[in-house]
Amino acid sequence: MTEILPSYVGGEWWTPATDADATEVRDASTGEVVTRVSTDGLDLAAALQHGRTAGQASLGELTFHQRAVLLKQFALALTERKDELYATSARTGATRQDSWVDIDGGIGVLFSYSSKGRRELPNAKVFVDGGVERLSKDGSFLGRHIYSRLPGVAVQINAFNFPVWGSLEKFAPAFLAGVPSLVKPATPTGYLAEAFVRILVESGLLPDGALQLVSGSVPTLFDELLLGDLVAFTGSASTAERLRAHASVQTGGVRFTNETDSINASILGTDAVSGTPEFDSYVKQLVTEMTTKAGQKCTAIRRAIVPTASVDDVIDAVRARIEQRTVLGDPRAEGVTMGPLASLAQRDEVLRQVARLEESGGRVVIGSTETPDVTRADGTVGAADDGAFVAPLLLRFDDAEDAGVHSIEAFGPVSSIIGYGSLDEAAALVARGGGSLVTSVATHDPGVAVELSSRIAAFNGRVLFLDRDDARSSTGHGSPLPQLVHGGPGRAGGGEELGGIRAVLHHMQRTAIQGSPEMLTAISGIWHAGAASKAGGRHPFRKSLAELRIGDQVASASREVSLDDIETFAAFTGDTFYAHMDEQAAAANPFFPGRVAHGYLLVSWAAGLFVDPEPGPVLANSGLENLRFVTPVSAGDSIRVELTAKQITPRETDDYGEVRWDAVLRNQRDELVATYDVLTLVAKEPAAG
Amino acid sequence: MTEILPSYVGGEWWTPATDADATEVRDASTGEVVTRVSTDGLDLAAALQHGRTAGQASLGELTFHQRAVLLKQFALALTERKDELYATSARTGATRQDSWVDIDGGIGVLFSYSSKGRRELPNAKVFVDGGVERLSKDGSFLGRHIYSRLPGVAVQINAFNFPVWGSLEKFAPAFLAGVPSLVKPATPTGYLAEAFVRILVESGLLPDGALQLVSGSVPTLFDELLLGDLVAFTGSASTAERLRAHASVQTGGVRFTNETDSINASILGTDAVSGTPEFDSYVKQLVTEMTTKAGQKCTAIRRAIVPTASVDDVIDAVRARIEQRTVLGDPRAEGVTMGPLASLAQRDEVLRQVARLEESGGRVVIGSTETPDVTRADGTVGAADDGAFVAPLLLRFDDAEDAGVHSIEAFGPVSSIIGYGSLDEAAALVARGGGSLVTSVATHDPGVAVELSSRIAAFNGRVLFLDRDDARSSTGHGSPLPQLVHGGPGRAGGGEELGGIRAVLHHMQRTAIQGSPEMLTAISGIWHAGAASKAGGRHPFRKSLAELRIGDQVASASREVSLDDIETFAAFTGDTFYAHMDEQAAAANPFFPGRVAHGYLLVSWAAGLFVDPEPGPVLANSGLENLRFVTPVSAGDSIRVELTAKQITPRETDDYGEVRWDAVLRNQRDELVATYDVLTLVAKEPAAG
Repeated sequence: MTEILPSYVGGEWWTPATDADATEVRDASTGEVVTRVSTDGLDLAAALQHGRTAGQASLGELTFHQRAVLLKQFALALTERKDELYATSARTGATRQDSWVDIDGGIGVLFSYSSKGRRELPNAKVFVDGGVERLSKDGSFLGRHIYSRLPGVAVQINAFNFPVWGSLEKFAPAFLAGVPSLVKPATPTGYLAEAFVRILVESGLLPDGALQLVSGSVPTLFDELLLGDLVAFTGSASTAERLRAHASVQTGGVRFTNETDSINASILGTDAVSGTPEFDSYVKQLVTEMTTKAGQKCTAIRRAIVPTASVDDVIDAVRARIEQRTVLGDPRAEGVTMGPLASLAQRDEVLRQVARLEESGGRVVIGSTETPDVTRADGTVGAADDGAFVAPLLLRFDDAEDAGVHSIEAFGPVSSIIGYGSLDEAAALVARGGGSLVTSVATHDPGVAVELSSRIAAFNGRVLFLDRDDARSSTGHGSPLPQLVHGGPGRAGGGEELGGIRAVLHHMQRTAIQGSPEMLTAISGIWHAGAASKAGGRHPFRKSLAELRIGDQVASASREVSLDDIETFAAFTGDTFYAHMDEQAAAANPFFPGRVAHGYLLVSWAAGLFVDPEPGPVLANSGLENLRFVTPVSAGDSIRVELTAKQITPRETDDYGEVRWDAVLRNQRDELVATYDVLTLVAKEPAAG
Repeated sequence: MTEILPSYVGGEWWTPATDADATEVRDASTGEVVTRVSTDGLDLAAALQHGRTAGQASLGELTFHQRAVLLKQFALALTERKDELYATSARTGATRQDSWVDIDGGIGVLFSYSSKGRRELPNAKVFVDGGVERLSKDGSFLGRHIYSRLPGVAVQINAFNFPVWGSLEKFAPAFLAGVPSLVKPATPTGYLAEAFVRILVESGLLPDGALQLVSGSVPTLFDELLLGDLVAFTGSASTAERLRAHASVQTGGVRFTNETDSINASILGTDAVSGTPEFDSYVKQLVTEMTTKAGQKCTAIRRAIVPTASVDDVIDAVRARIEQRTVLGDPRAEGVTMGPLASLAQRDEVLRQVARLEESGGRVVIGSTETPDVTRADGTVGAADDGAFVAPLLLRFDDAEDAGVHSIEAFGPVSSIIGYGSLDEAAALVARGGGSLVTSVATHDPGVAVELSSRIAAFNGRVLFLDRDDARSSTGHGSPLPQLVHGGPGRAGGGEELGGIRAVLHHMQRTAIQGSPEMLTAISGIWHAGAASKAGGRHPFRKSLAELRIGDQVASASREVSLDDIETFAAFTGDTFYAHMDEQAAAANPFFPGRVAHGYLLVSWAAGLFVDPEPGPVLANSGLENLRFVTPVSAGDSIRVELTAKQITPRETDDYGEVRWDAVLRNQRDELVATYDVLTLVAKEPAAG
C-alpha cells in the first residue's frame, strides 16, 4: 500500500487517520502509482490561524533584508539536495531540461528575490512609496505613502505543470513581504512540491508558520478566509471564475490574484521573411514552445501569426525542425527531448480540445492525434499505451478570424498558425485572444516594433521582441522571469505576479499617511524636513551606525564665492561654459543674473564644508541622488550646507551599511540653492582601539 | 412641466422623446421639483462605442503633457463660471462651505493633475515604470516595464454627495491617461453634474468623445462593457456587490474599482487628555466631520475611539461645540452652517440606521431623532416639514465590542463613541470595521503614532495623525486629496483612486517589454545603453530640441589625474577627507587602494570634458541623478566620459525643455568609474540670428 502524501501544517507533518478517500497519483510515462493524496480530517481553519498568528509573529520580527538573507539560504538548501528533486521530477513526465526550468528556475527565483530584496528594499519593515507630498504651505503637514504587509495568510493554489517553480515564484515575494504562505499544489504533481517543502523544513531555516503545505483538496478553503488574507491562483479559467465568485473575495476583502492559461500569440514581422535570422529564430522559438514541458505551459505559443505569404515557409521549417530534433518518450530514457503530458486525463483533455479546433476549421498540418510510438525507459521504441503521450501538433486555419483559434486552448504540444496582411490586422488578431500573458514578435525593424507595441501592449502582460541582436541571449517567449511581471489582462486572469519588488507590494497594503514631519519621520524611519534635527555636539561622521540617529546633523559655516573662485574652478576642471565666464552672455541667459558659480563647484564646496576629514566610521561617498539646482550663486554670495542623517540601512552580511544624508545648500539670504541626497558607506561599529 | 435633464452622448446633447418614465428630483430644503431624469431610448452601446473610437482617437493624438495643459484649461473654464455652480449646488442642500468642498475641490483636482502630469510624467504617450532589467550578461537582452493606456472607456458611476468633485476626481486621471470618460451621476444631484459638463462642453476645449454624460439610470450598462473598459464605482456596498458580480467583470476582464462608504474611525491618543491641544483638535475635527455636508461623506468619522476615562469629557466638549456652532437650515439662509440631507429618502434611511444602532446597544447622548426646528430660506425658524433635515447625533456604546457600532452606517450627521483601554485594544477596534477609507489619530507622542500605525495601516487607505504641530494646517480627516490615495481595503471597496500619478496608472496596463537595447529605445523613447549612439559630427550641445535626437553623443578625450590635482582640489574645496590625503589611512580603508581622487573632482572634470562652452541651445545644468561611484581613481589613472542624449522632454508652455543625458565615466582600463544622469534645460529652437 502506498503511503499517503503528508501535509505540513501547524508546524508538523500530518497524514489522515484513514485512507478511505485517498486519490491515486500515477507516473506520467508508465502509469505506476507514485503516491496517494487525501486531506480527510485536516483542520484547515487551524492551519490558516497558525499562519495568521505564529507566521505573522515570526516574520514580523524580521526586516526585509533579514527575510532576503533567509531566501538565499533556502535556495542554497534546495541546491544542495536538488538531485532528489530531479529524480522525483522525472516521474511527472518532465525531461531533464523541463526539470531544470522547474527546479533550477524555482531556486533562481529565491536567489533573485534575495538579491532584489537587499538592493531595492530598505532594511526595515515598512516600504515607502513615492515622494513627500507637501500638504500645507508652511511644511507642517505632509503626506507620504507606505506599504505595510497584509495581516493574514498568502494562500497559493498552484497548477500541476511547475510544482517547484510555481510554488516558489509565489512564496518568495510573500515571504519577503512578511506574509506567511499556505501552499496548495495540484494533485497530479503534488509529491514534487512535498519534496521541496520537506527539504526546507528539514533545513531548520523556516520561521515558525511561514510556510505550510496542504497536500490534497481544500473544498472549504474560501469559507475560512478573512480580510487580510490573499489568494494567488494558477489554473483553469473556470476554476478561477468559481473561486473569485466566493463571498470572501466579492465582499470579504480577500485579495484574489489569478493567472490563467491564455491563447498567447507570436507574430512573425513583415520584414522577417525566410532567410533572415529573425525567421530562423521565430521557427526555433515556436518549436521550443511546442515541445518544452510537452507544451504544458500557460505561456506557450498557441497562435503563430504570420504574414500570409510566409505561412507555408513557416510550416515547412517547423516540420523539419521537429523531425530533426524531437524525440518523444520516457524522460528517463537516453536521448528523449519531449516527455508525456502529466496524466492520462490531461492527454484526453488535450485531444478533446484538438478535436474542437478541427471542428472550428483547423487542419492538422504537422503531427497526428494517433497514439505515437515513443522511446520507453529501457530504450525500446513502441506504442505508448500506459503513458500520457501526445505528438507535437500544428494546426492551420485558413480563416484568421475563426473564433476557435482565438479561444480554444489545447494545453499540450499544440499550436495553430494563421496568416495576416497588414500590421493592423496582426495587432487585431492578437487582441482577439481577449488578453494574454505574453506575445512575442520577431522583427529587426524598430518601426514594426513600435507600431505593434503601441497596439498590443495593453492586451498583454509581457511582450518579447526577438531579433538577430538578442536571439542568442533571449530567455524565450515562454519563460516568466522574476524581474518581470508575469500575468496579463482579461483571459490571462487580470493579475500580476513576479516583476521584482512589484510582487512583494502585491502582498502589502498601500496607505497614505498624513501628519507633521515629526510623525512621518517616526512612522517611515526616514527623516523629513521640519522634523527635529540635532546639530552641534559630536560630528555625525564620527558616529558608527550603532551610534548614529536619524536627524543627526552638521550645519556648516558660510563660505563666500568670489569671481576668482569661479575662474579657478573653470581653469581646473575645463568647464568654461559661458554662464560662468562671460558676464554679458550669462546675463542674456533666461536663468542667470550674470556670471554664476558652477553647480559642481557648489556641491564640491559643500563636501568641504560638511566633511570631517580624519579616519572614522564613514568609509566612502558612494553616490548622490536627486540633485536640483534652485537659485544661482553669483560672486559675492555665500553658501552654507545642512547635512542631516535621513535613512540608515545596515547591511545584514557586511560590517557596514548605507547612510543617506539630506543635503540642503542655502545662500546668505536663506534662499534654497540646491538640494540633494548624499550616499555614504558607514561602519556598523566604532573601530577597535 | 419641468424639462428633462439632458445627457451628453456621441458629441451631442440628448433628451428622451417621451417623458413617461421620468423621475422627479426635488430641492433638498424645500421639496420643490428641480428637474426630471430619464434615459428612455438612449443608445448606451453607441455612446460607449463613441468613446472607444472617437474618444480614444482624439486623446491618442495628445501626449501626457498636452492632456495636462487641457486639464488646467478645463479648471479655468469652470472657475470662470463657478457662481452658476454654487447657485445650483445650494439646491442639493449644500452650504457654501459644502459647495466649496465639492466645486472648488473638484476644480482643485484638475489643477493638481495638470501640474503633476507635467512634473511627473514624460511628454510622451507611454510611461516607463522602474529601471532597466539586464536579462543577459552581455547586455544584448533587456527588460523594462511600460504602461499603455487601456483601449476602452472609463465608466464613472458616482454618488450623490459630491456631484462635481466626485466626477472630476475620476475624470482627471482618466483624461491624463488618455482614456475617455462616460460619467453616470447619481439621480438626486445629477443636475449639478450636468451643469459642470455643460460648461466644459461650451468651453469648446473637450477633445471629441473624451467626456460623455448619462443623466439617468443605465440598467444594461454592464452588458455592453468590453475588455479594455473600466468602471470606477462610488456608492453603496450592496450595489457594488451586484455590479462586481457581473460577467463583464468576473470573466470579461473589465476592471472594476470600488469606493464604498466605510465605518471610519478616529482615535484619541492615550496622551491626548482633556486640556491638551490634541484633545481640542480631536473634538473640533469630530464636530466638523459630523456636520460638514450633513455628514454625508464616505470618509466621515463613524466611530470615535476614545480612552475610557475620556469618553465623558469628549461627549461634553462635542455637545458644547455643536450647541455653540451648528445652525441647521436652508443653506440659502444667512448664518446656516449645516444643511439638510440630499433627499427625504436619505433622511428616512439615516433615521432607520440610527434606530438599528440603538437596537444594537447605542444610546443617543447628543441630539435627537425628532424632526428638528430649522432656519428657513426667509430666515424664520420652525419645523422642517418639507426638507430632509436631521440634527447632529452622537451615540454612546458602553460595549466597545458591540457588533452594530462596527458595521451599521447611518450616512448622515451621525457618529458613535466607544471607549478603549490599551493601544492594542484601540487598534483591534479599528480593524473591527473590516477595512476603512481613513482613520485619524490625535496624539503628540511619536511612540503612540508608530505603535498604532504598525497595527492599523493595513486596514486603511489613509491614516491622519493630528497634533499641535499640524492641527492648524491639517486638511482634515474627511478630505481626500488629489496627491494621496483615496480608497481602502475590505468594506471600503478594496480600490484606490487619486494618489497623484498612481490613479493615472490605474487607467493603464503595465506590460513587461523584452528585447534588444535598440528595440527598447524605440518603444520607450528612452535611450538604453547598447543601442545605437551617434558621436562625432556637431556637438549635441549645439543642437536645439528641434535638432537633437535620442542617442546623440559626446565621447570625450582622456584626462589623467595627478596627485597634485587631488591636492589642488582638496585645498580649493576644503574636502580633505583622509581617503584623498593620507596614503596609509586610505589604503587601510576597505574600498580604496590608497589615496584616490574625490568623486566630485571626477564629476567636475567630466563636465569640463563634455562641455561645449559657447552660448547655444543648452541653457543650464538643472540637476543630476542616480550618481554611483563604481571604481576608485588613483593618481596616474585617466578618465573619459561618454554623454548620450537619453530622454527629451519639451515643455508645452515654455520655449525650452529638459534633456536627460546618460553619463558614463571610464578609466584607462575601460573600467566603469561612475554613472549618472545629467539634467539640462535646452531651447526648443536654435537662437534666431
